[in-house]
Amino acid sequence: VLRVAVVGATGAVGREVCRLLDERVPEVGALVPFASAASAGRDLAAEWGLRTPTAPVGAVDGDAIAGADVAVLCAGIGVSLALGDDLAASGCLVVDNSSAFRMRDDVPLVVPEVNPEAIATRPASGIVANPNCSTIQLVRVLDPLRRAAGLEAVDVATYQAASGGGLRGLAEVQAATADLLAGGDGGGGRGGRFGQPLALNLVPQIGALDGDGMAHEEHKLRREPRKILALPELRVTATAVRVPVLHCHSEAVTLRLGRPVPREGLEAVLAATSGLCVHRSSDRPPFPMPRFVARCDDGRARVHVGRVRVDAEDPRTVQCWIVADNLWVGAALNATGILAHAVGRGWLG
Amino acid sequence: VLRVAVVGATGAVGREVCRLLDERVPEVGALVPFASAASAGRDLAAEWGLRTPTAPVGAVDGDAIAGADVAVLCAGIGVSLALGDDLAASGCLVVDNSSAFRMRDDVPLVVPEVNPEAIATRPASGIVANPNCSTIQLVRVLDPLRRAAGLEAVDVATYQAASGGGLRGLAEVQAATADLLAGGDGGGGRGGRFGQPLALNLVPQIGALDGDGMAHEEHKLRREPRKILALPELRVTATAVRVPVLHCHSEAVTLRLGRPVPREGLEAVLAATSGLCVHRSSDRPPFPMPRFVARCDDGRARVHVGRVRVDAEDPRTVQCWIVADNLWVGAALNATGILAHAVGRGWLG
Repeated sequence: VLRVAVVGATGAVGREVCRLLDERVPEVGALVPFASAASAGRDLAAEWGLRTPTAPVGAVDGDAIAGADVAVLCAGIGVSLALGDDLAASGCLVVDNSSAFRMRDDVPLVVPEVNPEAIATRPASGIVANPNCSTIQLVRVLDPLRRAAGLEAVDVATYQAASGGGLRGLAEVQAATADLLAGGDGGGGRGGRFGQPLALNLVPQIGALDGDGMAHEEHKLRREPRKILALPELRVTATAVRVPVLHCHSEAVTLRLGRPVPREGLEAVLAATSGLCVHRSSDRPPFPMPRFVARCDDGRARVHVGRVRVDAEDPRTVQCWIVADNLWVGAALNATGILAHAVGRGWLG
Repeated sequence: VLRVAVVGATGAVGREVCRLLDERVPEVGALVPFASAASAGRDLAAEWGLRTPTAPVGAVDGDAIAGADVAVLCAGIGVSLALGDDLAASGCLVVDNSSAFRMRDDVPLVVPEVNPEAIATRPASGIVANPNCSTIQLVRVLDPLRRAAGLEAVDVATYQAASGGGLRGLAEVQAATADLLAGGDGGGGRGGRFGQPLALNLVPQIGALDGDGMAHEEHKLRREPRKILALPELRVTATAVRVPVLHCHSEAVTLRLGRPVPREGLEAVLAATSGLCVHRSSDRPPFPMPRFVARCDDGRARVHVGRVRVDAEDPRTVQCWIVADNLWVGAALNATGILAHAVGRGWLG
């Protein structure tokens, strides 16, 4: 029986991982959820209607987790750093959702639709890293375009949803928005899950700033696509902004291709790519929107791209608008895909 | 007595124009407001506490408006196209807020802080165009940077507030958001003031799309800075997005300067520029946010810029985050500034 530990199971991403493993990976014979001590003992199978045999939630404990064949870590960078290498050393395959190991040379950083060759064999480190949510949806669109036309530079501005701040972030922005609209002060001062109030507002900083003023999320958007696409020289500039939307990250992207391709050709390339949903210039509207992507289960499983346009003044400059569910496409589905790949390759016995 | 007609006086911009003329331009001796027939007869002085003698609202009528010394047109492109040239021919100075005349060679496109030389003399056309809201806040920041370091290219992604859709747009998004948060459907289907539902959503299209897929707002962001800055070769790419924020447009900007300048130098250049408020890298937080700019009258009169950063990999690449009140800085204050300039130059007798 394949035993999969989900660490941080009761969080926004962990919950989706449990549900997707239950629904979509029949080889999983047992789910073993872990979370903070406050959640210990919860019966997630009953709460969420899981059919896979599921242990009661255990408090996070390295030895207990190491009993599983696979550990999907969704509890943040601290837990990943504390447990990742020891779990791998004990023989457990680690699929890590945090940024703890992504840039390590011995850890593949994988988007199954883009660079499955990075896990052609089980990595010696025992760890596979899941990229950042905003990276995944970006490279899913960049990859077919660079295969078709080459890729020299990317400038991206993000519009990131509250669900990136977890269940607490979602609850916070919903309560504060309702309060503001009712004439209240939205819960008052600064602080909270996003560092600043997000309700009816924009917070143009995600993650800590470095000495040059670049935010951690912006570093991820620069480094991770280079590694995933194996384009170490790719020029990437990014501004990461939290917006008062509940689900699904959006990105306004300006690309510099290696050679010009007409818009219809670019749309055709994207439409021929598995897992993408192209909102063509002939569609009404010719773009995806986060609220509608979030509502539709089928939509949540795909990366949506629209408003593809070629600059009339400079045909190697291309722009587009990308929307995907950050919890599914940007985290849980990608991790599930890595696990399904490992199962398919027979890594897990 | 200087008589100023405000056409579209009861709209979101017209209301701010009336208030600012009343408070800040003492030479205005009479306000003569015009609006649709439904608003005719309203006593705006009483409604809004204006001290300037103010006529009852009249229904839009070219002959009546022509009796004023100045007409500030805030009723949309249709009214501007229908009345602009005739008003100017009758001797009325036209300050137009629409896109009707902005690109006409005989019409200066003016941001008083940036290119007052464009109205060193009264234009023979009798028309001065007020730029687009998202243009004004952008060029207010670009101008000092290009003076200091040259400017080759601009890529901008906008985060535009609901107030750009007028009082009806504001009411629509507030009602729909409250309904969604209470478990409703947010008023249901597509359509409405933004073409698509904006509540807890993003609408990545502002204005009609051309055959290349470029939106009208994005054309404005390309053409207008070139004319205002007298940089016809400036490379500009833009994505214009409506966000569920009530007031103040925000912009994520990536610039290509002519020569590198350290971040502290760029911040110093901006801080020395009249009308800018720089949120420095040493400030906490080092960025402005639309909800807090909108709440503060002093803040509403300035263009806020923060997160200024120089790319460590390519020091001529600079990024920043710009926030300004689109109704004040982006429309009413700029138009008022043009009118004050005309008064100061003695154009109005």
